[in-house]
Amino acid sequence: MTTPHLHPLLDNGIQAGTGISGGTLHCKCATDKVEVTLKGDVLHNHACGCSKCWKPEGAVFAVIAVTPVDNVSVTAHADKLHIVDESATIQRHACKACGVHLFGRIEKAHPFKGLDFVHVELSSDKGWQAPQFAAFVSSIIEQGYDPKGMDAVRARFKELGLESYDVLSPPLMDAICVLYLRTFEALRRTIKTRSTCSNRIAGGSGRPFPLGAGPVRETLW
Amino acid sequence: MTTPHLHPLLDNGIQAGTGISGGTLHCKCATDKVEVTLKGDVLHNHACGCSKCWKPEGAVFAVIAVTPVDNVSVTAHADKLHIVDESATIQRHACKACGVHLFGRIEKAHPFKGLDFVHVELSSDKGWQAPQFAAFVSSIIEQGYDPKGMDAVRARFKELGLESYDVLSPPLMDAICVLYLRTFEALRRTIKTRSTCSNRIAGGSGRPFPLGAGPVRETLW
Repeated sequence: MTTPHLHPLLDNGIQAGTGISGGTLHCKCATDKVEVTLKGDVLHNHACGCSKCWKPEGAVFAVIAVTPVDNVSVTAHADKLHIVDESATIQRHACKACGVHLFGRIEKAHPFKGLDFVHVELSSDKGWQAPQFAAFVSSIIEQGYDPKGMDAVRARFKELGLESYDVLSPPLMDAICVLYLRTFEALRRTIKTRSTCSNRIAGGSGRPFPLGAGPVRETLW
Repeated sequence: MTTPHLHPLLDNGIQAGTGISGGTLHCKCATDKVEVTLKGDVLHNHACGCSKCWKPEGAVFAVIAVTPVDNVSVTAHADKLHIVDESATIQRHACKACGVHLFGRIEKAHPFKGLDFVHVELSSDKGWQAPQFAAFVSSIIEQGYDPKGMDAVRARFKELGLESYDVLSPPLMDAICVLYLRTFEALRRTIKTRSTCSNRIAGGSGRPFPLGAGPVRETLW
């Protein structure tokens, strides 16, 4: 069995982060590169198999991290950016010319609002936090990956020291659930109709609540 | 730290399955019990933290398994059954008197259509398949479980020999993705407008597709 090709930052072994006080990301245009400047290191860096994260040519997974919105500024050629899909929760700001996603921002109510999503592979600076885990692994099947290869993919992540998850990591899922519950409780206090609200949330009628990590997962059932 | 109470079938150590050719489930009414007869053993038995599965009093998790629809028949007091929530994907048939869920059935298009969901703790027969893993673990936070206790919950599952997941187990998630992809491809062949269909699925505009395991998870992003 050949070793699965996951992503250039993973395939030759993961470089440990050394701590970094910031740096710049650039799009892949030959000239007039869009530049995004980041203050500080990134957080929660991880491989992601979802269908929406930008991936370099040939990669099965994206590598994506977050950083507080205030740490992100566009410092050159902002005019080349556009939002890939205005209807998506994460507004992915990409270069119109080369297609690379420079940063993703959440504008609506969401547990991760306030954090921008960035790809450190777009930086020539060294020392960024290394990938910590692999998320949405089974999602690659939906994008055409041979299901027979999934055991090898998960084994390869394990070999690289990364746990595989089919959503996010347990600490992040727990955090989403806490934030969901808090917002639900605030909403409940506001509308003071617990039964109506609970029914809307538990009713399985689609997407009744903007933060519904559990309910979103549970719409399957 | 006290050991977390999860479910009666888990708390005193898990009894290994011995193979069983079937048995009966009963509701908790003192008289006129609803009876469901199962042919053969159950499959994919697991602990489930979601908000919709029936749990016995005081349990944080449900224990729930599947079995082919043809293996399930109501053999007494069918008139006491009603469907808990007609709008849910799983039509949970519960006893109107005692509230216990006797079986859950999927009537609409879904990767698990053809399998009924059952609780073997409702059977006095011994030897049913033991729980194999824990699903939707972080969901218990949304139902009020103290987030500080989550490490202990996951540690307790590990001690019992069960892996914890925040969706289903990887083989089941992979199976959902395969079935999703197959149905998507069939749909694509039918409507012959790939770009429109892909856009609808990738557009993050809610629940564009009935089987969307990935897209459902990804509506968060």
